[in-house]
Amino acid sequence: MNQHEQEAIVNADALQSVCSQLYQEVGVAQSDADTIAEMQVLMDLRGVHSHATRGLPGYVRGMISGNINPNPQLQTLEDNPASVLLDGDRGLGHLVSIRAMNLAIEKAKAASIGVAIVRNSNHFGAASSHAMRALPHDMIGFATTNGLGVNVAVFGARSVSIGNNAFSYAIPAGEEPPIVLDMACGAAAAGRIGTARLYQEKIPLGWALDADGNETEDPGQVAVILPAAGPKGSALAIVMDVLCGPLSGGLMGINKRFQPGDTPLEKRVSGHFFFAINIANFTPVSEFKAEIDRQIQMTRQATPRAGFTRVTLPGEIESELTQERLANGIPLHKEPLRTLEQLADELGVEIPWDRQ
Amino acid sequence: MNQHEQEAIVNADALQSVCSQLYQEVGVAQSDADTIAEMQVLMDLRGVHSHATRGLPGYVRGMISGNINPNPQLQTLEDNPASVLLDGDRGLGHLVSIRAMNLAIEKAKAASIGVAIVRNSNHFGAASSHAMRALPHDMIGFATTNGLGVNVAVFGARSVSIGNNAFSYAIPAGEEPPIVLDMACGAAAAGRIGTARLYQEKIPLGWALDADGNETEDPGQVAVILPAAGPKGSALAIVMDVLCGPLSGGLMGINKRFQPGDTPLEKRVSGHFFFAINIANFTPVSEFKAEIDRQIQMTRQATPRAGFTRVTLPGEIESELTQERLANGIPLHKEPLRTLEQLADELGVEIPWDRQ
Repeated sequence: MNQHEQEAIVNADALQSVCSQLYQEVGVAQSDADTIAEMQVLMDLRGVHSHATRGLPGYVRGMISGNINPNPQLQTLEDNPASVLLDGDRGLGHLVSIRAMNLAIEKAKAASIGVAIVRNSNHFGAASSHAMRALPHDMIGFATTNGLGVNVAVFGARSVSIGNNAFSYAIPAGEEPPIVLDMACGAAAAGRIGTARLYQEKIPLGWALDADGNETEDPGQVAVILPAAGPKGSALAIVMDVLCGPLSGGLMGINKRFQPGDTPLEKRVSGHFFFAINIANFTPVSEFKAEIDRQIQMTRQATPRAGFTRVTLPGEIESELTQERLANGIPLHKEPLRTLEQLADELGVEIPWDRQ
Repeated sequence: MNQHEQEAIVNADALQSVCSQLYQEVGVAQSDADTIAEMQVLMDLRGVHSHATRGLPGYVRGMISGNINPNPQLQTLEDNPASVLLDGDRGLGHLVSIRAMNLAIEKAKAASIGVAIVRNSNHFGAASSHAMRALPHDMIGFATTNGLGVNVAVFGARSVSIGNNAFSYAIPAGEEPPIVLDMACGAAAAGRIGTARLYQEKIPLGWALDADGNETEDPGQVAVILPAAGPKGSALAIVMDVLCGPLSGGLMGINKRFQPGDTPLEKRVSGHFFFAINIANFTPVSEFKAEIDRQIQMTRQATPRAGFTRVTLPGEIESELTQERLANGIPLHKEPLRTLEQLADELGVEIPWDRQ
């Protein structure tokens, strides 16, 4: 079966409307529901399906079961000249992260740099959807999160000790699309391995071990994700866990999993860490952007390696995909799309596109 | 030839004294010379020879030729509530970086986070030697630098577009040694490839391309360093370049190299970026450190993969090496050691150890 037969084309606005309605049906306020839906559809537009509307059924069922608070009362626990510590009240991470990143941006306007740390939260979607919030303010944005458990082996190990924590930097350009790094510290995001499973594709050796500790190409046999670039990804995963876990008053991923019994729940859920840097405090924004544009243009002129037809910058393909998919619709794998449609049926939300 | 035959054992104090005298002979003030020597010997103690005293002859000859200013007049260009921008007056990066990291720490005491950005500087040694300065203050430290040119291909390219920029995070623990990430964004540091060349060892496939664009195992044939973990290291190298180059008012590495003629010199040398985060502003330090200790202890209990006898944390082996080498001396490769001894002869500095 080729990829297209497995996919349906869905209009971005229609998808966003359905997603927002689904969140509203389980108690999320309309403006919050619109915001979360918009962030998730944006990731489908960018081709990052692992962190897009595919996650919605899990989030909505988490709200139904009570694991995720649909209407969190966000609290400010600490407020410093250049930073803030927030409590996410066990809501979906997207909402508290928007508040946090906006506060980091506000702090950066006054103090040149702003940090926002979040405790007691849940999955926040794609890290880049938060870091990119800094871009219209001519700031550099950073976002990271830790997960609920551990699925990555540290370098040299065949058993898991760390979450597949992700982080993003977003850097504004001038005429060119922004530079957006968004990476998991493991060799691949769990969602990316899930995509391979969905499309019945092999994964490259070096991504994962099976239950016997051997490297595997079968996404269905993955027991342990390996760290990206060995000791480098391993160390980065630990650092991101520290910034989101212990620094926010929570736990490292490994302790959420192995010592849950005697520890308050708010320490065992996800934490996040954000910063924004106000470029104008250090150099004229126009000069900064011109230099970023120049790097982008010169990088595109690099000679491609065998097997590559062009050289792109981080986030460039995602920018192109977004434009193309806004015009022509988003190709979504039919299996998760059917899951979304079934949830819509359960909750009485009408599907405006042709069903699969 | 095995490794030991190529090495001599040198006492850390003797090495530090010789290094400090060498810097003083070319006009560095004694206290600055002591400081730089101490930082470089620390990296030999930690086993990071690529960023240790092996670099001294290049620095000292740079001071003799006038490329590096031995007595820089450091200037504060911008001073904000949570950040500072410094001009390094084209001195050795170590000195302005010490000032910068200390200022980041001071800012963090008042504002919970402190950023220090440096322009118009030179090579600053190992990123970890700066990030670790935050540890005694119960802070998380971060340091990064960009280089003078480009030697890394971005993902998908076989020609170079980016420097092999390095960065470090340092995280304080309680009873355990601190967690210290220090990584180049390329698959390996140029100095690490130089070490392989020195010891006539092969390098792993995946580290580098030769002049024909083929992957090479011969450190003598390296024309292009590949990015660590493909698109991830590639994007990280770009981000670090942005933080140190354009954000400090300087250039990206690629433009230092290709557009030098019409650009002021201070934009074409190295920049640095540092931050410190004051843990106590977000969570009790004792709880933070206990959680880091727990992660370290649990990670050590992970099952080693085939080919590994133990699982270690970032910086753990370096901490152990430091203790062992303080007691028993530092094994140094005889070839760079002879280069150091020859420089000492030229400058009239006495060598207190048995010559090679």
